[in-house]
Amino acid sequence: MFLDQYDIIVVGGGHAGAEAASAAAKMGSKTLLVTMNLQAIGQMSCNPAMGGIAKGQIVREIDAIGGMSGIITDETMIQFKMLNLSKGPAMWSPRAQSDRMRFAEKWRLTLEENHNIDFFQDMVSGLIIENNTVVGVRTGMGISIRSKAVILTNGTFLNGLIHIGEKQFGGGRMGEKAATGITEQLVNLGFESGRMKTGTPPRVDGRSLDFSKMEEQKGDEKPKKFSFTSTTQLNTQRSCWITYTNSEVHDLLREGFDRSPMFNGSIQSTGPRYCPSIEDKINRFAERERHQIFAEPEGWDTIEYYVNGFSTSLPDDVQAKALRSIPGFEKAKIFRPGYAIEYDYFPPTQLQHTLETKIIKNLYFAGQINGTTGYEEAASQGLMAGINAHLKINEKDPFILKRNEAYIGVLIDDLITKGTEEPYRMFTSRAEYRILLRQDNADERLTEMSNKIGLASDERLKRVDEKYGNASQLVNYMESQSILPDEINPAILKGNGSPITQSVKMVSVITRPEISIGDLTKLDRVTEFIQTNNMGEEEVEQSEIQMKYKGYIQKEKDNADKLKRLENLKIPANFDYSQLKSISSEARQKLNNIKPQTIAQASRISGVSPSDISILLVFMGR
Amino acid sequence: MFLDQYDIIVVGGGHAGAEAASAAAKMGSKTLLVTMNLQAIGQMSCNPAMGGIAKGQIVREIDAIGGMSGIITDETMIQFKMLNLSKGPAMWSPRAQSDRMRFAEKWRLTLEENHNIDFFQDMVSGLIIENNTVVGVRTGMGISIRSKAVILTNGTFLNGLIHIGEKQFGGGRMGEKAATGITEQLVNLGFESGRMKTGTPPRVDGRSLDFSKMEEQKGDEKPKKFSFTSTTQLNTQRSCWITYTNSEVHDLLREGFDRSPMFNGSIQSTGPRYCPSIEDKINRFAERERHQIFAEPEGWDTIEYYVNGFSTSLPDDVQAKALRSIPGFEKAKIFRPGYAIEYDYFPPTQLQHTLETKIIKNLYFAGQINGTTGYEEAASQGLMAGINAHLKINEKDPFILKRNEAYIGVLIDDLITKGTEEPYRMFTSRAEYRILLRQDNADERLTEMSNKIGLASDERLKRVDEKYGNASQLVNYMESQSILPDEINPAILKGNGSPITQSVKMVSVITRPEISIGDLTKLDRVTEFIQTNNMGEEEVEQSEIQMKYKGYIQKEKDNADKLKRLENLKIPANFDYSQLKSISSEARQKLNNIKPQTIAQASRISGVSPSDISILLVFMGR
Ligand SMILES: Cc1cc2nc3c(=O)[nH]c(=O)nc-3n(C[C@H](O)[C@H](O)[C@H](O)COP(=O)(O)OP(=O)(O)OC[C@H]3O[C@@H](n4cnc5c(N)ncnc54)[C@H](O)[C@@H]3O)c2cc1C
Ligand SMILES: Cc1cc2nc3c(=O)[nH]c(=O)nc-3n(C[C@H](O)[C@H](O)[C@H](O)COP(=O)(O)OP(=O)(O)OC[C@H]3O[C@@H](n4cnc5c(N)ncnc54)[C@H](O)[C@@H]3O)c2cc1C
Repeated sequence: MFLDQYDIIVVGGGHAGAEAASAAAKMGSKTLLVTMNLQAIGQMSCNPAMGGIAKGQIVREIDAIGGMSGIITDETMIQFKMLNLSKGPAMWSPRAQSDRMRFAEKWRLTLEENHNIDFFQDMVSGLIIENNTVVGVRTGMGISIRSKAVILTNGTFLNGLIHIGEKQFGGGRMGEKAATGITEQLVNLGFESGRMKTGTPPRVDGRSLDFSKMEEQKGDEKPKKFSFTSTTQLNTQRSCWITYTNSEVHDLLREGFDRSPMFNGSIQSTGPRYCPSIEDKINRFAERERHQIFAEPEGWDTIEYYVNGFSTSLPDDVQAKALRSIPGFEKAKIFRPGYAIEYDYFPPTQLQHTLETKIIKNLYFAGQINGTTGYEEAASQGLMAGINAHLKINEKDPFILKRNEAYIGVLIDDLITKGTEEPYRMFTSRAEYRILLRQDNADERLTEMSNKIGLASDERLKRVDEKYGNASQLVNYMESQSILPDEINPAILKGNGSPITQSVKMVSVITRPEISIGDLTKLDRVTEFIQTNNMGEEEVEQSEIQMKYKGYIQKEKDNADKLKRLENLKIPANFDYSQLKSISSEARQKLNNIKPQTIAQASRISGVSPSDISILLVFMGR
Repeated sequence: MFLDQYDIIVVGGGHAGAEAASAAAKMGSKTLLVTMNLQAIGQMSCNPAMGGIAKGQIVREIDAIGGMSGIITDETMIQFKMLNLSKGPAMWSPRAQSDRMRFAEKWRLTLEENHNIDFFQDMVSGLIIENNTVVGVRTGMGISIRSKAVILTNGTFLNGLIHIGEKQFGGGRMGEKAATGITEQLVNLGFESGRMKTGTPPRVDGRSLDFSKMEEQKGDEKPKKFSFTSTTQLNTQRSCWITYTNSEVHDLLREGFDRSPMFNGSIQSTGPRYCPSIEDKINRFAERERHQIFAEPEGWDTIEYYVNGFSTSLPDDVQAKALRSIPGFEKAKIFRPGYAIEYDYFPPTQLQHTLETKIIKNLYFAGQINGTTGYEEAASQGLMAGINAHLKINEKDPFILKRNEAYIGVLIDDLITKGTEEPYRMFTSRAEYRILLRQDNADERLTEMSNKIGLASDERLKRVDEKYGNASQLVNYMESQSILPDEINPAILKGNGSPITQSVKMVSVITRPEISIGDLTKLDRVTEFIQTNNMGEEEVEQSEIQMKYKGYIQKEKDNADKLKRLENLKIPANFDYSQLKSISSEARQKLNNIKPQTIAQASRISGVSPSDISILLVFMGR
């Protein structure tokens, strides 16, 4: 039925599991994907969107490393937006909405195309452990399957318990069974487990919405993509719609609070602070008169809409009444009510940087099981666990990304060093070096590393070399070529800048805020240079970022280098942080409590920013 | 959240539920479809195929009436075959394989396009009954929703119990939860319930099969379609593959019999006799050395294959070992093992011809819940229940199909008058008038009737009128036009017929077995006539059937008329059937036992054929 022994068994076919199986198998491991329902591979449990602030960067990183989430999103998206375009490029964050059904189908077919992956539909109910090493899994049907390594990606399924108002029922997602057995066994083996919760909003019938009362939110005029490979270019897009709650909505919701599992004590576990339920929002931010609500289509053709911003586990009648007081939702018909789910997770401090557990050898955890939330966080962990499991069983060095190399590095480092008390979500603020960790350069940062370990293809690497070769050629050109006042002053004046009085190097005008590279590529000689050298749009954009943000980028690189040199610098045991007047009070308090032994450790404390560290270093005479 | 009151609530989104909701809503009823998982609407629980012998006729009938199964199959099929082409047209049976994912997606989107259907994802756990009339449903979440009528189409979900070897777990299909509450409530209300079982084969990884050891089974060269409407024409097709079990396979299976839930007593309920499990086949037909196995692709792109003919609930290790002894399956990797499922059904003698229950007003049952098996059987009942529920709440006459009007009529009449002890499947032999109930004339038989009640569109009716108008024009032409010996004798001789010696009417050669209408449409004057009158292929074929089988068709019509006239003819109370030497022994025995009161009742006893009835009538002097 199966191979006698697999290299790797991946448990769960969510975002983490799918990436894990894909990566391990691409690298050459004979991989078995065991999941409870083969029809539900790559399901988006919550909103049909990928990316967003910080999360979009992660998807770009996944793609640069050779994961599939970016490609699958590109091939199934119905809308694309580059968020934060008005801010610096470190903040640019791609976000796309996908057709939910197509996304899952594409994942399934993508995995099927991978000749090293076998599939089996069953619930894994336990692990086979010998000498503190995992050597396989046991399934609900009573089948034992052996492997050299196992990756658990159980998501929200372990002892999952769904809440809607006062109702509770077992389930891993609405309409799907919970998984049992694994938590109990792991706890017996000495693992610590905890309980978290998350929630999802109702889905409604788009035909019952009055979009004329909402603001249309279109996709970008020139939609970009997630993948650095040549995926399909999106042409037509579907719009989302924005509306707002009001005090009437809030009052109606409040009427149900006594029947809310969040407030009446049925749910004890912590939910994602930054994806709060609507009841949480009006409770915590009582002063706010309205909250934004997005009506997002779930696919190209379906009439089902996702009500982003209205996650709730209030009783269904309360959900319905409150929803219908939102402008445009007066006649809303609910397809599926919102709900909350509680599930087991394992505090990730029990893991190594490779995502291998400390207690059981060759056992890896990835995704929501590690206390994170979000598809991107899950997918990236799956990718890293798949890679590292493959490397480990082949006795190769681990693949660990540093905090200055990738958001994925930040994510995993945060998880395993600090743990998390609430569902962990990525933010740009969690990264010390966010000017380095941009979405545009994920390929430069990661593809070569991944190519070295045998995952990213040579083809991919060639693309990267070409892109950055061309970009620096253009930078060189602009550093050497001059521009005349007449050529650029109109653009400068239009942006309220002060005109130049004599010819200057092109690069020097690019750094001005009012000028973009588009003002230069208009010039015939620049156009000709770009065309002769066959440079693409992405390459021109890259060169612009490199020129415009050169100073910032260099400074952050220096900081990273400095920190790296000083990482092992010991902090005196009784160092009194109260002396440091100019650091944040949160940092001061945490440092005083935790008393880190080294600068590196200090820098990893949440709430301690890179500038706090700089001040500390100055104080220590560095 | 919902309308205050729906016209009709349909419980379940399988084949029965989808057709029921579609029909009721098309006719104008405000309809709510409540189903456990909106992602699983229109799921094919077992093989990804529609139609087949007798079942194909049902799909054509569904289409002629205005149901959607035919259209959805046409739009998602990957292979089409007209079965029994070598037999008379009464036996021609269309069969298609669909892409499983596309089929379900298409159903969902089709229902969404229907503006009278609302959707809700939840488990219905009980009915609201007032004055012996159903007035709504209660759901697992505790929601009450009111309606004028309710159609239950719970399929295999009511207290579903899945068996694989000695393992058992609750579920409505593998990976999906069972539904609870409804059976218990109905039994309390006085309904009788029973238990049935069905099974499904393992799914395997197509990449692990060696197709060179199997026979390829291609689709038809000129694939036809199910729908009488202008659905997409299939061009490329995917092949199926045929192989056989052997004595080694049978021995390996037998080794697991003591662990088989079928043989060790865990499963008590009856399964579908005509879709037996492989263990059943080798048990019941011990003398047969081999059984046919089809490897059928599950879609356009997927690598998953369905192992048709190998339905089993033996332990997974036994399944795997035996499967791997089948030529071509030596290295088969199982995606999902086969399993059996036991579920509650309600003996359908508790229903009226409209599928409304006798005990509770405005409550309808349709599909597997009535003890049937098969998508087509389920879909057609759903359609009829949807229609009749709509007619009833609008105080219109019921829509009942007679046994000489449709297989659907035979199906429902069989169910409600005879009941069924085992999962009921349609066969051509169940129809007394199968020469009348052909796949080619389903539109002629049913579209006008359906148009009258407001379901089949005028557009559809126009097509029918055109088709049969043209066909009879061609018949008239051939009845009036002559053909010369030289024109037709070559074809007659080629078919070993005896040549004609002088010019005859065209129609007279058509009735010869060796001649088909193609031999005549070759003639220039016939071609011209067809072209001038704009006649399509289907119309030419129709005229051929009418000419070729005129005698048979007429005779059966006469029989039907005669039976209708004699329906109420009383049979003497002590009639001794032993006198009737020339009727079948099964018929004699059953008639003696049951002692029917009228000819009509006698004709409906299973095992009593129309010819038995003719003999009886002769004996009674008619
Ligand atoms: C109700 C709900 C609301 C959410 N809301 C948000 C939100 O607001 N914001 C946000 O960022 N994220 C949200 N999420 C989280 C997001 O869905 C997850 O972060 C992401 O899907 C996690 O991916 P994963 O691969 O770790 O797990 P999942 O996507 O949950 O996949 C787990 C997979 O493992 C399988 N599986 C589990 N146990 C077993 C077993 N024992 N044997 C075999 N297979 C098994 C399951 O069948 C499933 O395929 C929500 C999730 C849910 C369910
Ligand atoms: C394992 C298996 C093997 C089979 N093998 C064969 C075979 O060999 N040959 C054959 O001809 N047929 C076979 N069938 C049968 C075939 O699948 C059914 O005949 C057909 O699907 C019945 O259609 P239905 O609409 O009646 O029910 P189903 O297709 O079972 O659909 C029932 C629907 O109702 C929903 N539902 C159930 N209860 C509730 C509730 N309380 N509230 C809300 N929603 C509810 C379910 O979610 C589902 O959507 C098999 C079925 C199974 C499960």
